[in-house]
Amino acid sequence: MKNIDQQAIENIAVGATLLGTGGGGDPYIGKLMALQAIDKYGPVPLVAPEELSPDDLVVPISMIGAPTVLLEKIPSGREMVKILEMMETYTGKRAAAVMPIEIGGVNSLIPFAVAAEKGLPVVDADAMGRAFPEAQMVTFYLDGLAPEPVTMADEKGNTVLFNPVDAVWSERLARSLTIQMGASAAMSDYALTAEQVKRSAIPYTLSLAEDVGRTILAAQSKSRSPVPALLKKLNGHLLFSGKIVDVTRRLDGGFTKGEARFAALAPGEAKDVRLYFQNEYLLVQDGSHVLASTPDLIVVLDNDTGTPMTSDRLKYGMRVDILAFPAHPKWRTAKGIEVAGPKYFGYDIDYRPVEERMAEYKNMHHDKQGDGNIG
Amino acid sequence: MKNIDQQAIENIAVGATLLGTGGGGDPYIGKLMALQAIDKYGPVPLVAPEELSPDDLVVPISMIGAPTVLLEKIPSGREMVKILEMMETYTGKRAAAVMPIEIGGVNSLIPFAVAAEKGLPVVDADAMGRAFPEAQMVTFYLDGLAPEPVTMADEKGNTVLFNPVDAVWSERLARSLTIQMGASAAMSDYALTAEQVKRSAIPYTLSLAEDVGRTILAAQSKSRSPVPALLKKLNGHLLFSGKIVDVTRRLDGGFTKGEARFAALAPGEAKDVRLYFQNEYLLVQDGSHVLASTPDLIVVLDNDTGTPMTSDRLKYGMRVDILAFPAHPKWRTAKGIEVAGPKYFGYDIDYRPVEERMAEYKNMHHDKQGDGNIG
Repeated sequence: MKNIDQQAIENIAVGATLLGTGGGGDPYIGKLMALQAIDKYGPVPLVAPEELSPDDLVVPISMIGAPTVLLEKIPSGREMVKILEMMETYTGKRAAAVMPIEIGGVNSLIPFAVAAEKGLPVVDADAMGRAFPEAQMVTFYLDGLAPEPVTMADEKGNTVLFNPVDAVWSERLARSLTIQMGASAAMSDYALTAEQVKRSAIPYTLSLAEDVGRTILAAQSKSRSPVPALLKKLNGHLLFSGKIVDVTRRLDGGFTKGEARFAALAPGEAKDVRLYFQNEYLLVQDGSHVLASTPDLIVVLDNDTGTPMTSDRLKYGMRVDILAFPAHPKWRTAKGIEVAGPKYFGYDIDYRPVEERMAEYKNMHHDKQGDGNIG
Repeated sequence: MKNIDQQAIENIAVGATLLGTGGGGDPYIGKLMALQAIDKYGPVPLVAPEELSPDDLVVPISMIGAPTVLLEKIPSGREMVKILEMMETYTGKRAAAVMPIEIGGVNSLIPFAVAAEKGLPVVDADAMGRAFPEAQMVTFYLDGLAPEPVTMADEKGNTVLFNPVDAVWSERLARSLTIQMGASAAMSDYALTAEQVKRSAIPYTLSLAEDVGRTILAAQSKSRSPVPALLKKLNGHLLFSGKIVDVTRRLDGGFTKGEARFAALAPGEAKDVRLYFQNEYLLVQDGSHVLASTPDLIVVLDNDTGTPMTSDRLKYGMRVDILAFPAHPKWRTAKGIEVAGPKYFGYDIDYRPVEERMAEYKNMHHDKQGDGNIG
């Protein structure tokens, strides 16, 4: 156990935005809520799943919806506490801890606001090891656990508790309610025992987010790029450095969907790099050549500041580094790829690990440079 | 108290379809479910609100959605019992009775199926005195009662309980869930005490439906038109007798919306009659002249058989009588007209009682026939 204070929240906000791969919501709102709550109630204990009693009730706390909307429609905070209390009423148990359902900007931080107010610890784990856009894209689902009941609340005071027949129905009903509630809402599902969390969640991801954030902030304080340290720490790959020449995005079914196009920073480098996202970054291509795809983590850093950028922040003219990191092994299984691989999102390509794709891509470019006959 | 047996169900099915003004769902499915349940569990007591203890819990049972879909997606029956049991769990009270929320084909009969299975009486009252397409169009809302909690279930096994901030949010969230659930679902709202039902509901409407149905079936058994008897019993008006020359309908936001056009049966009678519906019949015009509008009851009877027709049954070539009856006084108040008058449905006309409109229309036609200079 360690205590999460305001500096740790600052670190997690930055690190979780990187691990959130463009999604999870802008960290600003979540950070404000967590900082205010810690200021008022004191630091929040961060506990490993195994530090809890096996039967303890652990309640995930999250926001569902389009991050673009969250910047304009500020949560009240009451709705986060409400979804926890509804879960307690339904199960007849007091929550022993809360946890994030994903590692991403707003959704890694909201649990700390609720935990501070309720005097509970946060579990150092999540169910994605990154952020994903749909509610069934969690290790709990891969492991066959039931999402029910699902509790939802909005800032207006509407509350919903539902028992879907499966995780796909959970996503379907929750998404539809989210749209009605103004494209964002508080949501809790997969309220589990500490034992179930220990077996199924991806552990220590909040500690990892804090470590990543500290690394980025340390580099920034010395005006250095965090990229080399991040590639080493997360076993990653630099896919491309370039300038955004076009961004299109639209609100579609409660998601921010879109595409960004890039030109190379290095003069004379002929590349046609495209990045596709649905809240999260899902696919990077150079021409027809896939560089990385979901479920591997695709990350965009501001090239000037080293700050990780959510997809709703991408703008024409921005200079960025695009990185990719291997997904947790649970996502690289057949089931993981079926649930969150490129085909699920409508891209007609097979998933291949980023390290394989990049080895091939580098060979191709090496060959091209060495021998004009191959191309 | 009287007992509702299978013959009474047959009568209610016919009478409630008439009072349902084109909506409330095709009676066939509801009748089948009620007949089967009574066959298995015996007749169901029909009780006046004042026969219950004031604090008794009364649970309305209904289907929400597009009647067109209900003909193809048969309810399982389990979802009706489920929404009752969810209400009992939430309130911590056993239901003393169920009731229909509206008088309309399927929704007057479904409560009898649940009542038979659960050994409960049905209250002889409803909250519309007819059928209406939206959930806030109930006397309970006019009287400021809260709809929450709302319970919903579908035939697949999904269940939802929600607490909307008001009746408009109740309708909004329920409609969105209904669409996801396949355009029809079981729904209960306004679980009230018997005392509240006594003060706010429209009483004896199931008895009225049975009486109306008996009248129609008696006329049919003698091959006579039920129209004269119905006009007398319900203080109504025959607007028009004609043949359907065009019907357009579409599924829109969980409703069946549409319009029918008619030609006169009498040769040489030059009329351009149009009937507009959103599940229920809402407006009848001859050219630019309004004959009747919601909240007054507009009814279509098959001219050959005297059978009342729901809007999903209207077909090209059908010969029909269009009748209208005065709405209950609660709907003719300023609040009633605001909630369920023509302007709410997007028709830019003022509500005026059908008896006024028809007196004017008849005068106009009388003048026309008597004096060609006026037109």
